[in-house]
Amino acid sequence: MGTAAATPGGATRRPRADAERNRQRIVAAALDVLLEHGPDAPLDEIARRAGVGNATVYRHFPDRPALIRNVLIAVMDETAGFAEEALAEEPDAAQALRRFVHQAAASRLGATAAALKPWFDKDAPDYVAAREHLNSAVQALVERGQDSGGLRPDIAVSDVIVILSQLTRPLPGTDCPLTDRFVHRFLDVLLDGLCTPNPSPLSGEPISFEALRLRCEPGGDEA
Amino acid sequence: MGTAAATPGGATRRPRADAERNRQRIVAAALDVLLEHGPDAPLDEIARRAGVGNATVYRHFPDRPALIRNVLIAVMDETAGFAEEALAEEPDAAQALRRFVHQAAASRLGATAAALKPWFDKDAPDYVAAREHLNSAVQALVERGQDSGGLRPDIAVSDVIVILSQLTRPLPGTDCPLTDRFVHRFLDVLLDGLCTPNPSPLSGEPISFEALRLRCEPGGDEA
Repeated sequence: MGTAAATPGGATRRPRADAERNRQRIVAAALDVLLEHGPDAPLDEIARRAGVGNATVYRHFPDRPALIRNVLIAVMDETAGFAEEALAEEPDAAQALRRFVHQAAASRLGATAAALKPWFDKDAPDYVAAREHLNSAVQALVERGQDSGGLRPDIAVSDVIVILSQLTRPLPGTDCPLTDRFVHRFLDVLLDGLCTPNPSPLSGEPISFEALRLRCEPGGDEA
Repeated sequence: MGTAAATPGGATRRPRADAERNRQRIVAAALDVLLEHGPDAPLDEIARRAGVGNATVYRHFPDRPALIRNVLIAVMDETAGFAEEALAEEPDAAQALRRFVHQAAASRLGATAAALKPWFDKDAPDYVAAREHLNSAVQALVERGQDSGGLRPDIAVSDVIVILSQLTRPLPGTDCPLTDRFVHRFLDVLLDGLCTPNPSPLSGEPISFEALRLRCEPGGDEA
């Protein structure tokens, strides 16, 4: 691991682990730069912060939509990982949900989805897989919470993910440096609402992700 | 009301009530058009939907930021009015809060603030007055809720307004026609969290509007 091997042609071949490390550094740098500067952020700046050359960025991500998509996928996978860890490590179902919700705020899912989702094809197989991964990880948390009686039975996994994304979005129009100071308060209120022993009836029906995808994403079926 | 009076020069002078009606039609049309097309929406389209000429738009609003600011002010005033009505008409404090929260979603405060707030001067006296009007109307609801024991004591009026704005924002990147179908579910969960008899400790401190204004709005002091 980490050593370079000579190819028959004499060039230096980077082992897969190095390539993967570069890829992760590009994605991490791109997350920061895209959230700061928006989807048109200069790729030069992303390469610079990742400590790689522009050519390395292009080798991993053939175009801007592919890079943007992979940044959101990384955040979704991280968020799914938080759900899986909380489920595995917290014996109490309500505490597992609480831990997940607060960690998900740190993964910047709300900010990233808001900033990046309009800028790539939502039918790309890797994005579809990441969405299913996140949904099933949160579904497992929600099911355990509802089975234990700690989580209100009338809430759907789509409700949890969409509320969480909305509450953790940056405030309108700015990079507000204070968002982190109050977002966890909001999540505490949300958790009290999700885990109340006396839930009020909920208005309407939970929305399915399929309906959201078809009707609420650019290029979706507006019918 | 509604009749035109001849001026000494022979021109027709519109009475103030007509002017006010035109102004309201322009603001209502601008709200729809700005939310559909963003802050660069064509003024022609706004005038057309309001059923007035472009000159009438310019007579009421000398420039685009003034129009945008007045659209948000109208939404804030409408939202403040919902809070005042709920306080006056609902004998039960928790029910007053519930009614206000669901009505506020209909006023599109979250969508409007998100779309329009970055595009005008937040020190304009009429905007400052509208903000204070909204804050004090919600403050009265929150205080009555807390005095009655129905609303958790550790929540601040700024928390309520910011959570409400965040939960009622359109989903990222789209005009999602389904938002109205699930936003009231989210608000029901929020209300259960706000009115729980057994509140969990809230993380952090409530943020003051003054801090938000100074540090989180374009042109604010970033220090």
